[in-house]
Amino acid sequence: MLVVQKFGGTSVADVERIRTVAGRIARTRAAGHEVVVVVSAMAGETNRLLALAKATARTPDERESDALVATGEQVTAALTALALHDAGIPARSFLGHQVRIETDSAHGRARIVRVDVERLRAALAGGAVAVVAGFQGVDEQGSITTLGRGGSDTSAVALAAALDAEVCEIYTDVQGVYTSDPRIVPQARKLERITYDEMLELASLGAKVLQIRSVEFAKRYRVPVHVRSSFSEAEGTWVVEEDPAMEEVSVAGVAYDRDEAKLTVLRVPDRPGLAARVFGPIARANIVVDMIIQNASAEGTTDLTFTVPRGDYDKAKGLLEATAREIGAQGIAGQLDVAKVSIVGVGMRTHAGIAARMFEVLSNEGINIQMISTSEIKISVVIDAKYTELAVRALHDAFIPPTPNPPTPAPGKRP
Amino acid sequence: MLVVQKFGGTSVADVERIRTVAGRIARTRAAGHEVVVVVSAMAGETNRLLALAKATARTPDERESDALVATGEQVTAALTALALHDAGIPARSFLGHQVRIETDSAHGRARIVRVDVERLRAALAGGAVAVVAGFQGVDEQGSITTLGRGGSDTSAVALAAALDAEVCEIYTDVQGVYTSDPRIVPQARKLERITYDEMLELASLGAKVLQIRSVEFAKRYRVPVHVRSSFSEAEGTWVVEEDPAMEEVSVAGVAYDRDEAKLTVLRVPDRPGLAARVFGPIARANIVVDMIIQNASAEGTTDLTFTVPRGDYDKAKGLLEATAREIGAQGIAGQLDVAKVSIVGVGMRTHAGIAARMFEVLSNEGINIQMISTSEIKISVVIDAKYTELAVRALHDAFIPPTPNPPTPAPGKRP
Repeated sequence: MLVVQKFGGTSVADVERIRTVAGRIARTRAAGHEVVVVVSAMAGETNRLLALAKATARTPDERESDALVATGEQVTAALTALALHDAGIPARSFLGHQVRIETDSAHGRARIVRVDVERLRAALAGGAVAVVAGFQGVDEQGSITTLGRGGSDTSAVALAAALDAEVCEIYTDVQGVYTSDPRIVPQARKLERITYDEMLELASLGAKVLQIRSVEFAKRYRVPVHVRSSFSEAEGTWVVEEDPAMEEVSVAGVAYDRDEAKLTVLRVPDRPGLAARVFGPIARANIVVDMIIQNASAEGTTDLTFTVPRGDYDKAKGLLEATAREIGAQGIAGQLDVAKVSIVGVGMRTHAGIAARMFEVLSNEGINIQMISTSEIKISVVIDAKYTELAVRALHDAFIPPTPNPPTPAPGKRP
Repeated sequence: MLVVQKFGGTSVADVERIRTVAGRIARTRAAGHEVVVVVSAMAGETNRLLALAKATARTPDERESDALVATGEQVTAALTALALHDAGIPARSFLGHQVRIETDSAHGRARIVRVDVERLRAALAGGAVAVVAGFQGVDEQGSITTLGRGGSDTSAVALAAALDAEVCEIYTDVQGVYTSDPRIVPQARKLERITYDEMLELASLGAKVLQIRSVEFAKRYRVPVHVRSSFSEAEGTWVVEEDPAMEEVSVAGVAYDRDEAKLTVLRVPDRPGLAARVFGPIARANIVVDMIIQNASAEGTTDLTFTVPRGDYDKAKGLLEATAREIGAQGIAGQLDVAKVSIVGVGMRTHAGIAARMFEVLSNEGINIQMISTSEIKISVVIDAKYTELAVRALHDAFIPPTPNPPTPAPGKRP
């Protein structure tokens, strides 16, 4: 059985932890598995390298920044292979271009276009553990690319898909995926299982356990992902395909995102094409717009409200003011301190009244809802940021049953 | 005109110095030259990475160590390209495998077997400065290799040869090649010119300005090398082919090496094949033997004396003791604190009596000569280490004329 194991920055933070990781890989191998390991940069290393780039150039060139930060994973991959050797286990490190993991040329946020695992298979066939530097690839021209923050998750899942691995284990500094943030909700509990779709919603809603693209990959290629702690042997959370039994749970988790700011263009003349004129300049400035709400009024005008990352608020506001004048809107209103709170669960599709109950719970706490957005498996609301913790706790109390997880199966066994 | 400029670790020790280096490259470019830059790791970085490897594994695997330490030059190459961009100069960084610089698979001490400069030429044709990570290459299997300490010099000269560059400039923290070590001999002066052969002898004799292999490369491909300071605009030392005018100077420099220890196998039976039996085990233990002296006596035995690096003394002695018993030698004698002092100069070939004068100078100072070794352009003696400075100063006084250099020509102009 072939297993892909990915270790994040805190799991390989120093030489001692890298040796601990080597021990875990050794046990997996001793249990009779072939192992491909994917590693991130040692905790703090990527930021150190980015700071060097910032100190060297006012606007660092993206190709060169990629060549720079890719050294972080290269160091960890080599050290992990060295630690395995020292434990008596044959191992070979592989960089993105050695694997090879081919990407497009969008430096800093490249997408994987092709994975060739021939050399990894040769290493495995030779009895070695293959240790791959995560987060990096190579484009058609042979330039080094990186996949963006959390990209090592995507490297791991892509390799697991290409190798047809039994499981892709994501080792992290938490026990798995939780029903909510344990720092805010003490009763939050680890989920035994979660569907790809739920994980996608949770990942994009600010639960920073897995990079979104890695979940998309896992879903597309049906790679079972096991998120678990590198500091314990306990079962973590399996991210898997939906199965009928899962429908019983209506809400899987409560997520929040405090990095939101709200902007409203007031009294936009209600004519076709005006939304495009509002969002064009925002998009060209590379500002990511999240929720968008538009309500046409009877008087032929509409208020257009949306959220942006808090750091882009001032820039977005400046762009909007120019646009508002051009299109004859009344003006701009905005609020910097809002938060998005969401409940996520595949069960929502078949359980009526979840939305109504959510609004009631918030209302009971005196929390005003500013915006609402829904998908098939999630409901998000935007509220005053100061109510974030209160809202998350109240929703967790209301929707997540307090029953603990059943006894976990034996480690390594797939539920 | 195409110029290769190599910057060593102290020249790129931090972001500030890298920006200074970018300024110098910019001036070279402004003067109408195409520039290929070769950079070393930031000062201290290679040792930091090697320490990480040592902390991770008792006997670090050489392939993985190479993948690890090669990141040092990768970081500098990317930062240098970033600094050039910031100064408004198009630049592209290249790693060993991107250039590509193909080597054999002798990790940690690989030799360059082929240099393909097509991609560098394309970058130059596109108006960019090509910044190459020194010290590294790639083997036939695609594994990263390194060229050994000082290997960036060799990278630079090899690229200069392949590109048919007008000059290979080696930027360092000294002003050039000196007649002796200025820390010992205050009157030591910078040489204006030195031949490849003299430089080879000086490099191998412990003057650590250039890696020996880089000089071999320069000699073979007739690459003019200009060793100069990265902290000033002054002319440094040109390492060039011999020309008749240079014969006038008999001795170019006085070198020393304190990293020597002496071992003698006493009363070796004087039979064919015994020298091989003595040195076989030493060679298999990867101990580099430097000077070897053998004097057959009338009684059918001989004393075999040689020097090894001081750090290998105990190991070599242990091996010799076993050998001595096997071959019926009387025993082993050794001395840990010896030094080798040498005078070097192409003029020696045509100036008689240099050796006699050297021995006389040392004798006048009361220094006993333990071993003598000569080549066409150098004479080396092994003496008690405590006399090193005294011997070097006395020989410099005796052989190097006190006349200062003539006024230096304009910077960048080849003499």
